Amino acid sequence: MHARKVKLAADAKLDEVAGITAGFSGADLANLVNEAAITATRRHAAEVTLADFTVAVERIVAGLERRSRVLNPQERRAVAFHEMGHALVALALPGSDPVHKVSIIPRGIGALGYTIQRPTEDRYLMTRAEMERKIAVLLGGRAAEMLVFGELSTGAADDLARATDIAREMVTRYGMDEGLGHVAYEPPRSATPELALLGGSPPRTLSEETMKRIDAAVAGLVAAGFATATSLLTKHRAVLEQGAARLLDHETLAEDDLRELTAALRAAADQAAAERPTTV
Amino acid sequence: MHARKVKLAADAKLDEVAGITAGFSGADLANLVNEAAITATRRHAAEVTLADFTVAVERIVAGLERRSRVLNPQERRAVAFHEMGHALVALALPGSDPVHKVSIIPRGIGALGYTIQRPTEDRYLMTRAEMERKIAVLLGGRAAEMLVFGELSTGAADDLARATDIAREMVTRYGMDEGLGHVAYEPPRSATPELALLGGSPPRTLSEETMKRIDAAVAGLVAAGFATATSLLTKHRAVLEQGAARLLDHETLAEDDLRELTAALRAAADQAAAERPTTV
Amino acid sequence: MHARKVKLAADAKLDEVAGITAGFSGADLANLVNEAAITATRRHAAEVTLADFTVAVERIVAGLERRSRVLNPQERRAVAFHEMGHALVALALPGSDPVHKVSIIPRGIGALGYTIQRPTEDRYLMTRAEMERKIAVLLGGRAAEMLVFGELSTGAADDLARATDIAREMVTRYGMDEGLGHVAYEPPRSATPELALLGGSPPRTLSEETMKRIDAAVAGLVAAGFATATSLLTKHRAVLEQGAARLLDHETLAEDDLRELTAALRAAADQAAAERPTTV
Amino acid sequence: MHARKVKLAADAKLDEVAGITAGFSGADLANLVNEAAITATRRHAAEVTLADFTVAVERIVAGLERRSRVLNPQERRAVAFHEMGHALVALALPGSDPVHKVSIIPRGIGALGYTIQRPTEDRYLMTRAEMERKIAVLLGGRAAEMLVFGELSTGAADDLARATDIAREMVTRYGMDEGLGHVAYEPPRSATPELALLGGSPPRTLSEETMKRIDAAVAGLVAAGFATATSLLTKHRAVLEQGAARLLDHETLAEDDLRELTAALRAAADQAAAERPTTV
Amino acid sequence: MHARKVKLAADAKLDEVAGITAGFSGADLANLVNEAAITATRRHAAEVTLADFTVAVERIVAGLERRSRVLNPQERRAVAFHEMGHALVALALPGSDPVHKVSIIPRGIGALGYTIQRPTEDRYLMTRAEMERKIAVLLGGRAAEMLVFGELSTGAADDLARATDIAREMVTRYGMDEGLGHVAYEPPRSATPELALLGGSPPRTLSEETMKRIDAAVAGLVAAGFATATSLLTKHRAVLEQGAARLLDHETLAEDDLRELTAALRAAADQAAAERPTTV
Amino acid sequence: MHARKVKLAADAKLDEVAGITAGFSGADLANLVNEAAITATRRHAAEVTLADFTVAVERIVAGLERRSRVLNPQERRAVAFHEMGHALVALALPGSDPVHKVSIIPRGIGALGYTIQRPTEDRYLMTRAEMERKIAVLLGGRAAEMLVFGELSTGAADDLARATDIAREMVTRYGMDEGLGHVAYEPPRSATPELALLGGSPPRTLSEETMKRIDAAVAGLVAAGFATATSLLTKHRAVLEQGAARLLDHETLAEDDLRELTAALRAAADQAAAERPTTV
Repeated sequence: MHARKVKLAADAKLDEVAGITAGFSGADLANLVNEAAITATRRHAAEVTLADFTVAVERIVAGLERRSRVLNPQERRAVAFHEMGHALVALALPGSDPVHKVSIIPRGIGALGYTIQRPTEDRYLMTRAEMERKIAVLLGGRAAEMLVFGELSTGAADDLARATDIAREMVTRYGMDEGLGHVAYEPPRSATPELALLGGSPPRTLSEETMKRIDAAVAGLVAAGFATATSLLTKHRAVLEQGAARLLDHETLAEDDLRELTAALRAAADQAAAERPTTV
Repeated sequence: MHARKVKLAADAKLDEVAGITAGFSGADLANLVNEAAITATRRHAAEVTLADFTVAVERIVAGLERRSRVLNPQERRAVAFHEMGHALVALALPGSDPVHKVSIIPRGIGALGYTIQRPTEDRYLMTRAEMERKIAVLLGGRAAEMLVFGELSTGAADDLARATDIAREMVTRYGMDEGLGHVAYEPPRSATPELALLGGSPPRTLSEETMKRIDAAVAGLVAAGFATATSLLTKHRAVLEQGAARLLDHETLAEDDLRELTAALRAAADQAAAERPTTV
Repeated sequence: MHARKVKLAADAKLDEVAGITAGFSGADLANLVNEAAITATRRHAAEVTLADFTVAVERIVAGLERRSRVLNPQERRAVAFHEMGHALVALALPGSDPVHKVSIIPRGIGALGYTIQRPTEDRYLMTRAEMERKIAVLLGGRAAEMLVFGELSTGAADDLARATDIAREMVTRYGMDEGLGHVAYEPPRSATPELALLGGSPPRTLSEETMKRIDAAVAGLVAAGFATATSLLTKHRAVLEQGAARLLDHETLAEDDLRELTAALRAAADQAAAERPTTV
Repeated sequence: MHARKVKLAADAKLDEVAGITAGFSGADLANLVNEAAITATRRHAAEVTLADFTVAVERIVAGLERRSRVLNPQERRAVAFHEMGHALVALALPGSDPVHKVSIIPRGIGALGYTIQRPTEDRYLMTRAEMERKIAVLLGGRAAEMLVFGELSTGAADDLARATDIAREMVTRYGMDEGLGHVAYEPPRSATPELALLGGSPPRTLSEETMKRIDAAVAGLVAAGFATATSLLTKHRAVLEQGAARLLDHETLAEDDLRELTAALRAAADQAAAERPTTV
Repeated sequence: MHARKVKLAADAKLDEVAGITAGFSGADLANLVNEAAITATRRHAAEVTLADFTVAVERIVAGLERRSRVLNPQERRAVAFHEMGHALVALALPGSDPVHKVSIIPRGIGALGYTIQRPTEDRYLMTRAEMERKIAVLLGGRAAEMLVFGELSTGAADDLARATDIAREMVTRYGMDEGLGHVAYEPPRSATPELALLGGSPPRTLSEETMKRIDAAVAGLVAAGFATATSLLTKHRAVLEQGAARLLDHETLAEDDLRELTAALRAAADQAAAERPTTV
Repeated sequence: MHARKVKLAADAKLDEVAGITAGFSGADLANLVNEAAITATRRHAAEVTLADFTVAVERIVAGLERRSRVLNPQERRAVAFHEMGHALVALALPGSDPVHKVSIIPRGIGALGYTIQRPTEDRYLMTRAEMERKIAVLLGGRAAEMLVFGELSTGAADDLARATDIAREMVTRYGMDEGLGHVAYEPPRSATPELALLGGSPPRTLSEETMKRIDAAVAGLVAAGFATATSLLTKHRAVLEQGAARLLDHETLAEDDLRELTAALRAAADQAAAERPTTV
């Protein structure tokens, strides 16, 4: 089913591709291959070149600017709170990758805004807690929308898909659900792009009982991530409003602005700590 | 399963296609690709050109006039009430896209009448409430037929399919069912026509338990939309009769006629508000 | 699964095909495409021409005469009662299409007799009641056999298949089962022959729970149709016997003979009405 | 799934094939097509000719003699009782096709003996009772083995497959199971060889509940047929022993010998009738 | 699924292949075709010749000697007891095919030892009891290992697969499970190699309920065979030890040595009979 | 599904491949074929040569050194404990293959460290106990991480996949689950690389009930292996810490260092034995 064959041009050495994708998750790489193939298709080429991969990386990280896309004021507000939701959850959760930029300038395909987190270094291992934080950050956008506007929108579809993917891998590949045990319910998604290009191993056949428990475990992890995000944003509602307002004014917040928000978050945390009775 | 390969001619730049499809939903785009492919097939061409897309857009929005199709009087009445059902629900539901034209001139493939709503602007985000309204408008035709004739007909098949599609996306892509949570049960239907042409991602495997809950959630959203439509049309039965009569006389109602109907609706609503006791 | 590719010859314009298929249901059209393809295959042609479609229409409506097929007397009686069953249910059910001809001359592939109903006009909408009548007429043949001979035979296989198809569409495309709601459980079978040739949309994935309810709803509609047919034929048993006898004598009953039967049916109905006590 | 494509040679007119297959059931025709294809394959031909069909018909009706196949005495006895089982059930069941020949000369592929029934005429309709008799005759071989040797053997595999096919068609195509109703659970297996060559319609999707009831109905019909066969053979045990003994002596019983057996059966039946008290 | 196409060379007449495979079961023939295809593949040939079939027959019956494979002493002991387990169960079960040779010289692919039974004649019918004995003999190797070493090893995988195949055919093709009745749950596996090459008929669709009962019936037959083997080997433990010791010394036991073992078995049985009180 | 076709170059004699893969399990061989194919693909070759197999063997056993991959200190510690977990469980479990080398130098694709066990000889049979030990050793890495850091990471995905594969084979091919019996639930994975290249046999169809029991049995074996590993590492926590510390210092531990660790393990075991009261 997954066996999309992508023919590589001679120059598309996978080592070089790897060089520009440090910090990419398996899902990002799969996405990358897709995007590169699309780019090649668009220029009616039969092979995917290194240039196609470069374009694809750019599109994935930030998308292409699309100033022609004009959102109405209500949509712009929703996007601003959505992106600040991602950013604040990332800033507030200890151990999350630092946030470098938040923007509500529409870019790329479907992206109405974006929040860029860049890992401080290449990572080779992720803990269960780190993956839970990733899910919370991904659901931070929707949590902010719910908190502020009290209603769900279609804007979070991609976030839900990515959060679900992470939760599913935790349960089926990394054995991180206690009830389901240290069992691999899906064949290993090889860490190497080569195997991904060849389509990977075939899926295993599971009983309905097991599939039901996997579905429940995935839903549980996603629900926990949403609860974490909602709780953090509720606590820092003031900073959320302030950040969104600034984002609506400036369209893009870079490191300096974000530093101020972080400071505000920290101040709030310090104050909370100071107010906490010492006996606990 | 969905991987229909459509070969694009060199001139069918997807950007230009995008230019003529503002306001199209994902389902509309999928439909568009189908129609364009059919158009190309009809002229025995091996590639789909931009012209094919243009023809397809036209067909989708309003269909081709087909005066040769002669409905009998009872069918004409049914179509008139059906189209007025769509239009009145759209006019009566605050927040729906404005109705520009209602017609009972048969057009295109299978369409016995049509109601054209045009969004006032391109929209990039839709809320849950907006999608619920869309479902109610789509089921307005059938609700009117049921109300007036007391029986179901085959005329609403396409409406049911589209309403079901929207409800399904709400549940499986946009995480809008509380019980099923913020989980993506289907891979993201990429907003980009390129990916749609390539067939999208493969479907996820779900447990019977989950599929059962998805079916129930979809049926619930559709039932709610039908209830909304029925309730609105029952309340405005007089306007419905009046509009259908005018439609049978004139075959097509344009903005002016519709404005009168809107006024009638508003007057009814104002009167209802005036009659409502102030204590509640 | 349904994607039979049929290559069309340049002269097989689908508009012209449509011109000779007025009143055909979707199932009839699907059948037509099959028959045309077989006709083309038989003359070892690579393309399906308009002539193939014409031959196919003829075969479908009445079949080719096959006098060489000699039924034994018991089979002839069974066929006569079977065809009269179709005809009488159609004649007795108000709103059914008029019956033009009933015959027990074997024709075409597998047809041992035939009853031709011709719609008085092209129809674009069908109500639930009309579809229920269609099912009852289709099951009228079997109901007559059961009533007269007290046993089931293989002669009704095609009737069962068509009645099941109609019942299934009522439930899964037209939302006519109350419990299952206004939900489309199958993608729209496009009304256009072009899409049918391309194979239509892929089927939706449903839960076992939903499939079980669909099966039950379909079986319920078929059972109701059989009950209607049986009840009508029981009431008009004398006319059934009389019609079958005449059919065995003349092999074919045309409009005049049928008019007499209709008169007999009406007389019986009038008498029943006259005998009914006035207090009810 | 069933879509085996068989390329027909120009001379293999299906009408002529039909001419040599009078009285063949749908299953026989499917078998015929298979056999003809195998015959063609054996002569490394790319097309199936009329000669291939003729050879196939011969193989199916009686198989090729294979004197080289030497059964041991116990196997010979088993085969003799098996074939007499088929023959006696056919002779004893009123309404079965007459038995023309019984033989224990191994023939064709896998056939260790054969019993030839020839219908007295072409049949176009079969009643439920006739199909039940066919199942009983098919299971007569195994019933005889069980009765005489008290154990099951592999010799009845083909009988079981054919009996199961008939029972399945009764349930899923001919609506002959009361509980499952007049519903077609499989698309019509066209009576025409052309459509069979094209692979027929795709199967329908059924709920587990329905499949379970179909399985139960099929098993019920097969069990009833086996009970009928066992009961008849128990009653006529003496004739069974006598017939098997004669078959072991002569290897083949033709019409004359069979007439004697029939007479013996009738005598037994008359005696039973005479002994029956008149009051019942 | 099973439709492996194997291209036959002109000299590979299936009659001649049949000539060297007397006594092969359907499973053996399927295996033979596989092995022949592998042999052809190994010599990079496009067609399978008669020579390939001859090599394959040899490999299947005894495998190629592979003296280079050196087992450690514990493995050698396990293999010796395993092979003696097969041989003793075959010798002790009345009605089993005679054992001609037992060896622990590694041969062929994966075979660490082998036991050759040769039927005294070609067989065309097998009874249920004979198939049960076959299963017991196949599981005799594992039963011996369990009895002597008290633990399961990977050495019996092929035995389990073959025993399961036989049990499955008993249940699904030969109607030998009382609960499931005389129903064919799988299409007949044609006895002819030609049809096997063409891939046979498509599988039937069964309900979960039926599949569950089939699984239970198969597991029951396998468990009964294992119990029989264990019981026989427990009774003849001394002969088992003696035979294994001799096998470890001589590596191969031919008919003479086996005759001695048989005598020992018979003596034990006679003694048991003599000791049995006469009243029973 | 598994039928990956790999074209072999003339020099890639499978015997020679076998010569360099002594002690490889079936899963290792499957992996080998994959890796060799990838290696061939990387050099844009159409055939897989012996050299490709040699490279693949090297990659599988130890991976390529990848000094460029720089782990952060926390990751390095996690890897050190992970690898010592594998090594200590292998050293502590009597009967496991000896450990030759443990390293935390990143190598190959995805491998952040490695532990090399080399069997002292080729093995042809594995007992249930040996397979259970293999699972425990594979889960030793994750068990150590859990013990020391108290949290799960993504580092064990490949271990889980391999442990699951072994457990699944125990249950479905080797009949090692008591409840499921001596039944083969999957077709034999041929021990020969040729058949593996051809894709093996098709999977069997199992009931949901059986699949559920297989899932439970597999999960049970994996859970038992994890419990064994955790218990051993808890007991030898001091040696684990000591080994990990040394590994962090030296990056690689060879046989001498490992001998010391073994001595420490033995001393602990002796002491425990000495302290145990003699009455038990």
